[in-house]
Amino acid sequence: MTDVINLASDNVAGAAPEILAAIASAAGGRQPSYGGDELTARLQERLSEVFERRVAVFPVPTGTAANALALATFTPPWGAVVCHREAHVAVDECGAPEFYTHGAKLLLADGAHGKLTPQAVAAAVPEWRGDVHRSQPAMLSLSQATESGTTYSPAEVGALAEVARGHGLAVHMDGSRFANALAGQMGAGQGCSPAELTWKAGIDVLSFGGTKNGCVMAEAVIFFDPDKAADFAFRRKRAGHLLSKMRFVSAQLEAYLADGLWLRLARNANDRARQLAEGLQALPGVELLHPVEANEVFVRLPVALAEGLAREGVVAAHWEGEIWRFVGAFDTDAATIETVLQRARRCVAAAV
Amino acid sequence: MTDVINLASDNVAGAAPEILAAIASAAGGRQPSYGGDELTARLQERLSEVFERRVAVFPVPTGTAANALALATFTPPWGAVVCHREAHVAVDECGAPEFYTHGAKLLLADGAHGKLTPQAVAAAVPEWRGDVHRSQPAMLSLSQATESGTTYSPAEVGALAEVARGHGLAVHMDGSRFANALAGQMGAGQGCSPAELTWKAGIDVLSFGGTKNGCVMAEAVIFFDPDKAADFAFRRKRAGHLLSKMRFVSAQLEAYLADGLWLRLARNANDRARQLAEGLQALPGVELLHPVEANEVFVRLPVALAEGLAREGVVAAHWEGEIWRFVGAFDTDAATIETVLQRARRCVAAAV
Amino acid sequence: MTDVINLASDNVAGAAPEILAAIASAAGGRQPSYGGDELTARLQERLSEVFERRVAVFPVPTGTAANALALATFTPPWGAVVCHREAHVAVDECGAPEFYTHGAKLLLADGAHGKLTPQAVAAAVPEWRGDVHRSQPAMLSLSQATESGTTYSPAEVGALAEVARGHGLAVHMDGSRFANALAGQMGAGQGCSPAELTWKAGIDVLSFGGTKNGCVMAEAVIFFDPDKAADFAFRRKRAGHLLSKMRFVSAQLEAYLADGLWLRLARNANDRARQLAEGLQALPGVELLHPVEANEVFVRLPVALAEGLAREGVVAAHWEGEIWRFVGAFDTDAATIETVLQRARRCVAAAV
Amino acid sequence: MTDVINLASDNVAGAAPEILAAIASAAGGRQPSYGGDELTARLQERLSEVFERRVAVFPVPTGTAANALALATFTPPWGAVVCHREAHVAVDECGAPEFYTHGAKLLLADGAHGKLTPQAVAAAVPEWRGDVHRSQPAMLSLSQATESGTTYSPAEVGALAEVARGHGLAVHMDGSRFANALAGQMGAGQGCSPAELTWKAGIDVLSFGGTKNGCVMAEAVIFFDPDKAADFAFRRKRAGHLLSKMRFVSAQLEAYLADGLWLRLARNANDRARQLAEGLQALPGVELLHPVEANEVFVRLPVALAEGLAREGVVAAHWEGEIWRFVGAFDTDAATIETVLQRARRCVAAAV
Repeated sequence: MTDVINLASDNVAGAAPEILAAIASAAGGRQPSYGGDELTARLQERLSEVFERRVAVFPVPTGTAANALALATFTPPWGAVVCHREAHVAVDECGAPEFYTHGAKLLLADGAHGKLTPQAVAAAVPEWRGDVHRSQPAMLSLSQATESGTTYSPAEVGALAEVARGHGLAVHMDGSRFANALAGQMGAGQGCSPAELTWKAGIDVLSFGGTKNGCVMAEAVIFFDPDKAADFAFRRKRAGHLLSKMRFVSAQLEAYLADGLWLRLARNANDRARQLAEGLQALPGVELLHPVEANEVFVRLPVALAEGLAREGVVAAHWEGEIWRFVGAFDTDAATIETVLQRARRCVAAAV
Repeated sequence: MTDVINLASDNVAGAAPEILAAIASAAGGRQPSYGGDELTARLQERLSEVFERRVAVFPVPTGTAANALALATFTPPWGAVVCHREAHVAVDECGAPEFYTHGAKLLLADGAHGKLTPQAVAAAVPEWRGDVHRSQPAMLSLSQATESGTTYSPAEVGALAEVARGHGLAVHMDGSRFANALAGQMGAGQGCSPAELTWKAGIDVLSFGGTKNGCVMAEAVIFFDPDKAADFAFRRKRAGHLLSKMRFVSAQLEAYLADGLWLRLARNANDRARQLAEGLQALPGVELLHPVEANEVFVRLPVALAEGLAREGVVAAHWEGEIWRFVGAFDTDAATIETVLQRARRCVAAAV
Repeated sequence: MTDVINLASDNVAGAAPEILAAIASAAGGRQPSYGGDELTARLQERLSEVFERRVAVFPVPTGTAANALALATFTPPWGAVVCHREAHVAVDECGAPEFYTHGAKLLLADGAHGKLTPQAVAAAVPEWRGDVHRSQPAMLSLSQATESGTTYSPAEVGALAEVARGHGLAVHMDGSRFANALAGQMGAGQGCSPAELTWKAGIDVLSFGGTKNGCVMAEAVIFFDPDKAADFAFRRKRAGHLLSKMRFVSAQLEAYLADGLWLRLARNANDRARQLAEGLQALPGVELLHPVEANEVFVRLPVALAEGLAREGVVAAHWEGEIWRFVGAFDTDAATIETVLQRARRCVAAAV
Repeated sequence: MTDVINLASDNVAGAAPEILAAIASAAGGRQPSYGGDELTARLQERLSEVFERRVAVFPVPTGTAANALALATFTPPWGAVVCHREAHVAVDECGAPEFYTHGAKLLLADGAHGKLTPQAVAAAVPEWRGDVHRSQPAMLSLSQATESGTTYSPAEVGALAEVARGHGLAVHMDGSRFANALAGQMGAGQGCSPAELTWKAGIDVLSFGGTKNGCVMAEAVIFFDPDKAADFAFRRKRAGHLLSKMRFVSAQLEAYLADGLWLRLARNANDRARQLAEGLQALPGVELLHPVEANEVFVRLPVALAEGLAREGVVAAHWEGEIWRFVGAFDTDAATIETVLQRARRCVAAAV
């Protein structure tokens, strides 16, 4: 029987050896609990370097927690958050933003390839600010990379943030695949730093993801203006997201950022996605639905091919109808993708 | 300079080698995310064996999440939870139970040595059931071990649960130190199984802790009647406590339960606490405040001794006034405790 | 100066003499507070007669309270409510449904003239029931009359409720203008009773409005299956909507239902709306946007006419662009509408 | 059969003729809805005069709404409110404060005769400000009159507010019987104005009650610093407490304040309570439990007397054990109280 190759998501992968080593290494000795440890203090410094600015960092165990806590910090219960209709916060978190904000609304905007445009954001912000009968727009949330595997350039983020700012909205970036987006933008040529992709472009708060890109469980909420984070520690604690042995999350993020590991892992994932996309596109009847700018590939597959791949042990995520998602992970190797493509070609050949 | 010895809490410790090995071992290969993995399925089986009953198991990253989610499952927003005045849910979770229940009240009952009595529970349950002006009592929450380091016997749990049941209350056990309590009760002689200490005595839902006893971060909510858990998956997800790489928590708990590791670690912690308590009690002016039935030691220390220990690098948790807490951890060794006692004796001798 | 004629809403009107008399009459003597009074008991009987079924009735002071409390009874915090994109619950209540449900989502469906269709409802109900990542559809909410002044026939309600039922949704009717809708449907010819328009067609819970149709402040939540109302009294009390002198609300509703007053008032309001619509339609450039099936008239007015009417002291509600709403009230008389039309004709004449 | 005389509460009474006349009078003509009307604007002016300061006034239909909304304005979800153990917000509102604050805690303080002391408040405020594990004290709530029918003098309010201020707490006054308390304090001799009893003594926000003292349903939240009320309109609306025909509440409050009606009614209620207390105290075995400083009388009654009064048609509120509450209302007359006393004396005589 052929080996199963699971490309359904990047979180079906395990964890990078460097991350595992960091956890093991963090296990020795005594450390103050609940984030009072040395590793968490060092992480704060390290991320301030990475983002070229004094930031306030709050590690949390999941991306949903990071997003919901970040949104709740800037959105009152009677507030509203503008986001893409397909944003993770809108469709994949079982109402976490509404829970954490105590009832704010999401205002859904459309945009091709999962991306918001300044026009779409402007149209989604209602004109009723101050009207007591309406939820009050308070925030814009961008996904970087988007749910369609595309990315925003610093200029695009800047344009969106400018519209948001003009309407009095704070700006959140859901960066559960921030490394993939950053690596993608860096590869796009004109240079792109973490700072340029975030606060320099107008982002107030970032959900910084590590889990999908090789960590065991490690996310962080990063405030670019630490003053805005005054209440965050209480929000996190009462939600049960303050880890007693915080050092084990901070250790992961420290290792993740060391020696460019995060970008190296993200580049591999992105490269594998591109490799797969190129191979699949060459097959008859396969349609690439979105530009592959990070580590996700969305394709329309002929039914016979989809069924054939399933029989061949290739696991993708079924999106809807004939649409499938394949995701490159931090540790997916080129040979695996080549094997997937061989199987795909075999299916196509058999179908003739 | 003398080495620092930190006995302030069990969560200042790192993690057991077996737990670290399990994490590393879980990292290989692909697994469905969000709890669809094999390890989580196996954990479900394993805990059903441990508790001699089909249980529904939901791993979560923190004890606060476990407690708050468990309480919210049985308590409506207009409900009330009876607990000890010093319970973790009442004083150490920044309002997590109120957040997760959407506004239920905690009804605080008193009791010596951190333990509730049937009388205290009965007195705390108001007679106003059905009175629309009052929050409706819905649940009793017990801490096992208690916040004072004492434990309930199966018979004591049973008596409390019976009172609760008589008032229509479901019963929760906060078992962040469940292994320590169980080991303590087992050592007490008349035999005690996990089942006897929980559902056989009337517990509906258990917060089963691993983190304090050698795990990295691993807790689980265990429902003894799986039918009561119908909504739990939604509650957990929208709170951001559904881990994408769940396997890494389940792996910890599997290793924790394998070959009696959990009880071995707990027994060590308990033994160290008793060793320390006996040594300290022998010193002039030291008063042991609660029986040492698990891994915590609460003592009143003469000011000179407290100051002396601090100078000697012995770190305890300051409770209030002259009261201090020392906690034995899964990996504290007898020599360390002996060193602490030597330093204490030196302080006493110097003070004469 | 010409008199101001304000047709912006039915709630700019005062209250009917019969309602005022009922309040005055209810003021005598002692009555148990918080709904334990005789008038509230009688109202329960009276509404059971009106709806030809034993109903559970809960008076509340506002329509927003009625709607939000009704939705919260059937929708868990991780649930979702399907409603029209323009429904009052979606756009005019500042997030009250989200507040009362503790974070449920509204799923917005489209439909011409403010009306949902079975197809639109089916399309709006996502297929993800049971998917832990998604809010779970729990309820359908219909507005009767709609926000566009149209109404559903019993058959239309039935068809919508059937779709809802097929997806496991309970069905709510926002009847803040229920009398207007009922009177409209009765006038449509084939007969229509309160029962036929609600529970016989599949409605579970009704927000029954009195305020807009001649009461001072009087609304009621009506459950057609009293068993579903078990928690309602607690929900209402903790929201501050249990009135201490409830008799004064119940008295209004009793008078409202006596001798067909409610339908008489509603018919007047509807007639005036129709009178106005017919007159306005005859004017050049005026476009009637929705059928006038209750007491609201939505028209597109040429800018010159809109400005002229404003100058002439006719107040309408500006909807958006060139769209305006005029509303007939319980006490608007035919002469007033005729005066409005005369002024409109004068404006048109002057503009030539 | 003897007439029933119900003294169980002041809200078993109806409404004053002046209030009913004001409602009827407000019914004429058109007025903007949702508080945009002239009467509400005038009320704002009137209350600013009464309190000798520019205040922000928000009418609401119930005292529970007023209290819960006021507390939520100053208390974050992770906050805590210090109040008397018997305060209405703590025991009579089915968790409304917890609902509206989204989960804040009440910290219960004790004090004789329902009154807090500076010492009790200081003791109830925990020292853990800034400790992320604990709910953060944010507010002090005083009841004026108290739940025991006693009142605070301006000096007493000032002393409590000073302690609160010293701990960084805002101060709320639950004035559901504010007129009774004010009338009581005025009668105490050394002069007392509404301003002196509130903001001059350190109160930030007042729940100003009218319903218990002769209104139909009319309460208002009054902010002494209008800047603190910036969010209040949204809070009120999304809770369903923004009345569409607000004029009818404002009209009541306007009439209530006109020509000293509110104080005249309150004085009558207070006088009747004192009359009753004096008469009852003269009977053997009757014990007055609290000073009668407003319109409530709490007495311990011999069982035979309690039973006799019940037989004689005198209705009091059973508090607990042998303790009963009698309340004077705005319209209770002296003859009625004398009749009650005659019946009581008859019971005593019969029992001999």
